[in-house]
Amino acid sequence: MPYEIDETHDQNLKSWVESANDPETDFPIQNLPFVRAVFTDDEEQETFIASGVVIGSKLLVLDLIAQEGFLDGFVDDEIMSTMLIDEYFSQLSRDDRAKFRSRLVSLLDKDNAELRDHELAEHTLFDVADVELLPAFDCRDYTDFYASVYHATNVGSMFRPDNPLLPNYKWIPVGYHGRASSVVPSGTTVRRPVGQLSPAEEGGAPGFGPCKLLDYELELGVVVGRGNELGQPIPIAEAEDHILGVCLLNDWSARDMQKWEYVPLGPFLAKNFATTVSPYIVTMEALAPFRCPAMTRDDDDPKPLAHLHDENDQSHGGIDITLEVFLASKQMRDQDLEPIRLSKGSFKDMYWTIAQMLTHHSSNGCNMQPGDLLGSGTISGPTREARGCLLELTWDGDPFAETPKLVPGTQRTPIELPTGEERKFLADGDEVIIRGYCERDGFRRIGLGECRGIIEPALI
Amino acid sequence: MPYEIDETHDQNLKSWVESANDPETDFPIQNLPFVRAVFTDDEEQETFIASGVVIGSKLLVLDLIAQEGFLDGFVDDEIMSTMLIDEYFSQLSRDDRAKFRSRLVSLLDKDNAELRDHELAEHTLFDVADVELLPAFDCRDYTDFYASVYHATNVGSMFRPDNPLLPNYKWIPVGYHGRASSVVPSGTTVRRPVGQLSPAEEGGAPGFGPCKLLDYELELGVVVGRGNELGQPIPIAEAEDHILGVCLLNDWSARDMQKWEYVPLGPFLAKNFATTVSPYIVTMEALAPFRCPAMTRDDDDPKPLAHLHDENDQSHGGIDITLEVFLASKQMRDQDLEPIRLSKGSFKDMYWTIAQMLTHHSSNGCNMQPGDLLGSGTISGPTREARGCLLELTWDGDPFAETPKLVPGTQRTPIELPTGEERKFLADGDEVIIRGYCERDGFRRIGLGECRGIIEPALI
Repeated sequence: MPYEIDETHDQNLKSWVESANDPETDFPIQNLPFVRAVFTDDEEQETFIASGVVIGSKLLVLDLIAQEGFLDGFVDDEIMSTMLIDEYFSQLSRDDRAKFRSRLVSLLDKDNAELRDHELAEHTLFDVADVELLPAFDCRDYTDFYASVYHATNVGSMFRPDNPLLPNYKWIPVGYHGRASSVVPSGTTVRRPVGQLSPAEEGGAPGFGPCKLLDYELELGVVVGRGNELGQPIPIAEAEDHILGVCLLNDWSARDMQKWEYVPLGPFLAKNFATTVSPYIVTMEALAPFRCPAMTRDDDDPKPLAHLHDENDQSHGGIDITLEVFLASKQMRDQDLEPIRLSKGSFKDMYWTIAQMLTHHSSNGCNMQPGDLLGSGTISGPTREARGCLLELTWDGDPFAETPKLVPGTQRTPIELPTGEERKFLADGDEVIIRGYCERDGFRRIGLGECRGIIEPALI
Repeated sequence: MPYEIDETHDQNLKSWVESANDPETDFPIQNLPFVRAVFTDDEEQETFIASGVVIGSKLLVLDLIAQEGFLDGFVDDEIMSTMLIDEYFSQLSRDDRAKFRSRLVSLLDKDNAELRDHELAEHTLFDVADVELLPAFDCRDYTDFYASVYHATNVGSMFRPDNPLLPNYKWIPVGYHGRASSVVPSGTTVRRPVGQLSPAEEGGAPGFGPCKLLDYELELGVVVGRGNELGQPIPIAEAEDHILGVCLLNDWSARDMQKWEYVPLGPFLAKNFATTVSPYIVTMEALAPFRCPAMTRDDDDPKPLAHLHDENDQSHGGIDITLEVFLASKQMRDQDLEPIRLSKGSFKDMYWTIAQMLTHHSSNGCNMQPGDLLGSGTISGPTREARGCLLELTWDGDPFAETPKLVPGTQRTPIELPTGEERKFLADGDEVIIRGYCERDGFRRIGLGECRGIIEPALI
């Protein structure tokens, strides 16, 4: 069941944390995403880690307010002292999570004096700018899906012009296992990978060297908050109960390595050198006002099989999250030029819903665990503006034309940067910035923050 | 560099633990594999976990002998109290690991009275039969390779008779990411997975239900003991320094799910319902006498690229581990019949070495971590007897014939069981048992123990 709109979504709510009332902030009182923060004590040369929620430009440390009794009756002190949000959420029912959110909103409400006027209030709030933010979960298993039919069709058109979509696509939320160890927080630099590159001609020897076709992929990361026992599938009607929230995700991709290595067992080194996630877990509760129907299927598309079908998921399984990708080259940053926007799309255009992905994943009994990360797959929409990676953006083809024109690597139209530079793929020094936000009349805008990464030159 | 033979491999060494001197044991004093053990206190209804080495039919708990000072100067007490072998080994250099092994062998030597005659000796040794054994590592990331050219050729022949091996096979140790959460210890029952099954005819709808083509895959599991920093590849000459040891691995596979789901991103639900590992980590040190040259490549095979080539790895990168697979149906067990042997092969027949796999994995900068598990891929050899899964064993084809005969699912020759039952794939109640051991003239035989699993019926 998708999450419901309640009094915590009232657009008129204001906080006594003034920066949360700025109309431009991603983090009003209606949002309250979870993060972990690293505090550095310069004198002692020690670091401490704490979990919290972000409100405006501030971090509220949950353990500290729990110790003062502000969460009594809402969540166990001992649970709260766990530094990993996903671990304590795995112990709370959905009702209890709603009560917990409601309590946090109440504590931060400008008209509630409890915490506002408490002598310890200032000791529980920190400037986000003073700490290092980490995702609130330690990534256990990472799975990457392929849930945008527009992306799958665009990419398929390049490799198989006559038959862009493989026969399983509209039956299965196709996914594959990714690498958890190289999931890194926003801001981590990404070294251009070195590897075997697709041979110049069929049957030839592969090249070996720095990737020449380095790309980003705009994705949403979905964080599992509660698992299932091995052998016990999650029914689709319960799937969303297992989801803690979402973050932004950049699935960096080395296209020339991918093309060579991916048969028959899928992408491997082309992906596992780095996957960047934003630190903010925006909860499913916070996203409630922005739910929308699942993408409408074409009349000749197959109906989802029974285990992947749920009426509530059809009517509310989508989420209208606007997603934008920006690029700033080193030259642009050196000249203080603003990043340029490469694309703008929405998560509502995904062919498969989050519930369908999670249900499929566990349908064979595979056990999910708190902290598992599901990538949505590249989020592309029906328009050129909504293409979620450079492979698609600089491609001249039209997958819906009778004969899609191009194969990868040929006749790409470069993107022009304000410095006069051109990009078909990423250059060293390029910074890719993903932003996401939700807007709807009658509701306060909330944001997902940013997911950033700069490309460093290869080691050789 | 492969590991060297030293005095700990002397075949004349005997232990004061009598069961270790039984010529039939897998675990003589020359082996000493690492395990974790779960002790259950029935009265208190509590369980305790400890790390140890297996010697004969006994478990020696390392933490207990460390507390008594027996490991002073060899390994830090604090390190030793870590329950995860992989975590403390990540802190020991290769030289220190050799000294540690040498010390353990010395302590267990029949002529050494230090521990043998110590009043606490009997409190540090337990009957393996009285505890539950777990792998000595918590699986972090799990990667599965495809390193047997015989397996790849057999399977490729079924799907692409004219072109069994894909162009990348002899250049790249092909691998893909697996699921860590469902890696389970030997003895865990395996529930037959339910899922979307390959359509009966091209373009048709998939079935949905219990897997009909359930298979095992005989593999070796390689456990990483030391990682590398993200962005810093591991040179092939150093690759073996990062390996702690090996175990037996069964990569259970649902062939009808795999065939439908695996394009274009690789196997997913066909594999991630369960992967069984044996609990014993047989160390690289213990395996030193059984090293052999890497498999000889055909004259027209490409030479490995420079980063995958090392003279020492060519001369000693293989390991001659004999591997056998046995099957016992429920009827057979009910009639007290012995399991029948399905296959017998050797790890020496792998096209890619362990060092090549690990080097390839990190060549793009991907970071390995202590506790990572690498599956070798199905271990098949050049003969029919050496085929490592039922997909190959019950297949009538000959991949080296001019026209390989069959496609999967057609004209399979079933295996006959002593009860009169027949098997093309696994039936409910079947137990699959993998055994492994090393033998060489002039050296004591060592074993890898067993990896077992029984198939439970599907939930629907």
